[in-house]
Amino acid sequence: MALLAVGSIALDSVETPFGRREEVLGGSATYSSIAASFFGPVRLVATVGEDFPEEHVQFLRSREVDVSGLERRPGRTFRWRGSYGFDLSQANTIDTQLNVFSGFNPELPRAFCDSEFVFLGNIDPDLQWRVLDQVRGPRLVACDTMNFWINGKRESLLRTLRRVDLLFVNDAEARQLAGEHNIVKAAHSILELGPRALVVKRGEYGALLFARDHIFAVSAYPLPILFDPTGAGDSFAGGFMGYLARSRCEDLAAMRRAIVLGSVLASFAVERFSLERLRTVTHEEIRARYAEFRQLTHFDDLEIDLFNGGASVR
Amino acid sequence: MALLAVGSIALDSVETPFGRREEVLGGSATYSSIAASFFGPVRLVATVGEDFPEEHVQFLRSREVDVSGLERRPGRTFRWRGSYGFDLSQANTIDTQLNVFSGFNPELPRAFCDSEFVFLGNIDPDLQWRVLDQVRGPRLVACDTMNFWINGKRESLLRTLRRVDLLFVNDAEARQLAGEHNIVKAAHSILELGPRALVVKRGEYGALLFARDHIFAVSAYPLPILFDPTGAGDSFAGGFMGYLARSRCEDLAAMRRAIVLGSVLASFAVERFSLERLRTVTHEEIRARYAEFRQLTHFDDLEIDLFNGGASVR
Repeated sequence: MALLAVGSIALDSVETPFGRREEVLGGSATYSSIAASFFGPVRLVATVGEDFPEEHVQFLRSREVDVSGLERRPGRTFRWRGSYGFDLSQANTIDTQLNVFSGFNPELPRAFCDSEFVFLGNIDPDLQWRVLDQVRGPRLVACDTMNFWINGKRESLLRTLRRVDLLFVNDAEARQLAGEHNIVKAAHSILELGPRALVVKRGEYGALLFARDHIFAVSAYPLPILFDPTGAGDSFAGGFMGYLARSRCEDLAAMRRAIVLGSVLASFAVERFSLERLRTVTHEEIRARYAEFRQLTHFDDLEIDLFNGGASVR
Repeated sequence: MALLAVGSIALDSVETPFGRREEVLGGSATYSSIAASFFGPVRLVATVGEDFPEEHVQFLRSREVDVSGLERRPGRTFRWRGSYGFDLSQANTIDTQLNVFSGFNPELPRAFCDSEFVFLGNIDPDLQWRVLDQVRGPRLVACDTMNFWINGKRESLLRTLRRVDLLFVNDAEARQLAGEHNIVKAAHSILELGPRALVVKRGEYGALLFARDHIFAVSAYPLPILFDPTGAGDSFAGGFMGYLARSRCEDLAAMRRAIVLGSVLASFAVERFSLERLRTVTHEEIRARYAEFRQLTHFDDLEIDLFNGGASVR
């Protein structure tokens, strides 16, 4: 089943301690679509300007991304310019030019309206709502958001969340949305807002999956080289949703595998600038890194007689 | 096999968003001994003043902690006063009175000198060295340290590390010791300094175990209530070392179980002030939480036919 992915496409200019790139391919819809495309076809809904290089469209097409929902509008493509310091955990935005993205009003091609698996990238929650109005009875709707909407369009976001099955946020956003510092309590509050599952992204520390009476934790893959964290969260969400759409599963066991695959895709994305690494990664490499995640995190049962000889508790 | 634990004993005054306690039992040797005592006998080496309440000594004795290496000296017991804000990740030290601890010069009782498993709590690396001079051919030596010694007594610390098998530090300390921000590279540098294994503690995010060509990651137990993080790191190290001493194992599979058990003990320790929770926790609760850690972190293999239908990579 194809995944419907809605979001931004941008030309990013990025500087990290390891180098810089000017006007390279970026945006939430780009990263999520490409990450998802390893698992099956993707239907992309986004907008670009007249200046958007045709080679990028060709690249998307070459990856079985259906670009019939990619609208090319008069004007310039969305630009983002940012930098990262040595800890690479926080982007420092230097300049944002929304350009044609400021008038983005997603219209789904008729053929996309039966999409069962939907990923709403981080855009205005009113636009996310409008997308859902166009999809007939989706099976699983996932949504990303950010502090800007949590603060500035809270009511719209809450309205959208009531139609969402799965929310992706980072830990600061989860705390902000719930108004609660403790992440477990914050998650429980958010699960009252509509989503039946919540993924809390924690950057280099990994991610948590919360559902009713259920928590799963995955560590991030410890990378000796982390070039550019741009797009990590969207690659994560794309890998996660691409896998669910591919396996046509939405139970918690599938979501646990999905969060690991999301981590796998994110770990590749940050190894190079832009989508450079995602362009070359293979299915075999994805499988191998998934297996490495098991090596990284699994451990044996305890011995039966462990506590003979330990201090007894009064 | 009994674990030898050397470190501080303190009377702590702590304020967190959830309450405060005055002059309660604390210190690295206390937390590590009690956490280790669930697995087997502990030999404690520490010093207290004339004012140290006898009930605390009785408590240690009641937990099969051999206190024949506990020296009572003229003067007052080490005092620490600190507070935590809502994020609970950083202690704010308000006052430190070393008192008798400033003259701590660990002398091992003759019967302790054959200890095979040794935990050197966070004290002056020259004192850690002196302890090792008194132990005959230990099997596994683990050591904790902190920024104060990494900066202020670097040469002494490096000398001690050459006799250490396993080092416990937090991520900031690992970066500082290695002079490298990337935690994987920092770990590899530290493994060149002597220890054959390194545990990097990451607070609410969990911990990493590094050895040559080996990484293991454990997430912290997501707690809805975290009362007082004081002693979490020492409870972690105590649980870790207590288990290794009990199982008489020092291979990597055992260390993986040990790091989970350390996380289990730490997760209990922070549920109440001081050692309140560690006083009441049972072997059954430890077993159950260990099983919960498997539920929290384990995931299934991928399906065989996953990638049929995914975009092929050029």
